Amino acid sequence: MGDAAAVRAVWDGPIRQIHDPADAAQVFGEALPCLQVADAGEIVPGSPSLDGARCAFQSLEAATGLARSESASALVTAPVSKAQLAQVGFTHPGQTEFVAERCGVGRENIVMMLAGPTLRVVPITIHMPYAAVPQALTSSLIRSRALATVRGLRRLFGIEKPRLAMAGLNPHAGEGGLLGDEERTIIEPVLAQLRSEGVDITGPHAADAMFSARARREYDAALCCYHDQALIPIKALHFDDGVNMTLGLPIVRTSPDHGTAFALAGSGQAHPGAMIAAIRMARDAELFRRAWNETGQPA
Amino acid sequence: MGDAAAVRAVWDGPIRQIHDPADAAQVFGEALPCLQVADAGEIVPGSPSLDGARCAFQSLEAATGLARSESASALVTAPVSKAQLAQVGFTHPGQTEFVAERCGVGRENIVMMLAGPTLRVVPITIHMPYAAVPQALTSSLIRSRALATVRGLRRLFGIEKPRLAMAGLNPHAGEGGLLGDEERTIIEPVLAQLRSEGVDITGPHAADAMFSARARREYDAALCCYHDQALIPIKALHFDDGVNMTLGLPIVRTSPDHGTAFALAGSGQAHPGAMIAAIRMARDAELFRRAWNETGQPA
Repeated sequence: MGDAAAVRAVWDGPIRQIHDPADAAQVFGEALPCLQVADAGEIVPGSPSLDGARCAFQSLEAATGLARSESASALVTAPVSKAQLAQVGFTHPGQTEFVAERCGVGRENIVMMLAGPTLRVVPITIHMPYAAVPQALTSSLIRSRALATVRGLRRLFGIEKPRLAMAGLNPHAGEGGLLGDEERTIIEPVLAQLRSEGVDITGPHAADAMFSARARREYDAALCCYHDQALIPIKALHFDDGVNMTLGLPIVRTSPDHGTAFALAGSGQAHPGAMIAAIRMARDAELFRRAWNETGQPA
Repeated sequence: MGDAAAVRAVWDGPIRQIHDPADAAQVFGEALPCLQVADAGEIVPGSPSLDGARCAFQSLEAATGLARSESASALVTAPVSKAQLAQVGFTHPGQTEFVAERCGVGRENIVMMLAGPTLRVVPITIHMPYAAVPQALTSSLIRSRALATVRGLRRLFGIEKPRLAMAGLNPHAGEGGLLGDEERTIIEPVLAQLRSEGVDITGPHAADAMFSARARREYDAALCCYHDQALIPIKALHFDDGVNMTLGLPIVRTSPDHGTAFALAGSGQAHPGAMIAAIRMARDAELFRRAWNETGQPA
């Protein structure tokens, strides 16, 4: 997907331009198949431009449609410049919301999961000021994120009985109320309710202790109260192979968990690990998704 | 230090009881020298008791005095049960405050640093509820913690020109005010002031990106706005070799960064890595401290 000339600047292997996505599979053995987007214009890697933004927008639109119609198996998005996209008529906060709308899924029902080889995290609240979190962290939001995470782990990761671990909001998970009471008033009641519904969820845990190597073995995904509580450990441990996966969509969608890095684009210096991990995870998730759709059970 | 019988239950090497700390050095080659604390009573590892608390209290008192008088080179404390200690007349919030008082240093002038092989962190605010942090995070507190950290890195780690990195409070360090304004109103002004005074300090950084392996190479210590922002990355990366070092004291004091683990005590199952790291770091820091005291310069 995307402009062949632009791809050529950042990929030194063979490239073959295709006109029908159905041709991709037979090309992959020899070259990177690249579907030309109409009117791509002049694109220079590392130089944000309206032509580049239009190409990104059209690529996203086309790729989402192909995945939605099952002409493509999964959608892997690359980082985009939101500022540039806004100038070419893109009105969504990000690619995730765009894809959700095209899939007919409400924004409140999609969940961002960051996944690396030894840790998966789901932030309950995401892009808001630090001080806004205690107000936004409600029992019902925790419940919907937990249930969506269980569904995602079963359908896209083939985990039959997902084990969740929930972090506390306060240091030492509040230390029995001495260091804050959101654990007792908000988190513990909804965890009790979830357990009574059969969800395997532990916590609230002291957030600083739950990301050690030993602690991570005890759960399949950590639910975190806020952005940095989730993203600090995943990026400390898996900066170069962390993948952003959107749960709650009818299609598989992943992306590398980093930004555009315009200063590195086209220089050959950027680390491709996260993009490779995103493509691999999309492949695996799509196999699990197909098996689920056939049997209604984790593969 | 401590009761020889209790030590015997958790250490399978040779032990020799000594009566004068001056004898320790010559014993170390053959056995673990153990200074008997008067009236240690009956102590069973893993079973919290008043006798055990008294032994811990008296050991701390004696060891602090020995370090303060330079009869011992450094102080390494083990985890204690604060609940038990409170029942035998210990009135301080923790061992750190006790040691500070015995050294004649005000609590506000001591700084907790957590240090592992690839990361050092200093939390600016520590044991308080999540919601209390924005109020407690002041420019003057950031300034005093930053200056104490620079002094500690020069005197105890032999780093001539310490490089500090300060985390933002909000996700993406506030994203230019879109996700909170503490970066602009509190953090950026004091960082500018510190730089004008010659302190090498960068930031405010997006907290989720600053603990990757590459980012960690760019600084000697990360200053963090709150407990979990500092302790999540250090424990995710260095759970078994993370050391708590108290900066701002006239003596060297370290401790392993974990709790009592009464369920493991005496079982042979506890991981000794953090205690070994704490002893090693105390040894290194004491050598740097002596060199500093002789020359007034980092070694």
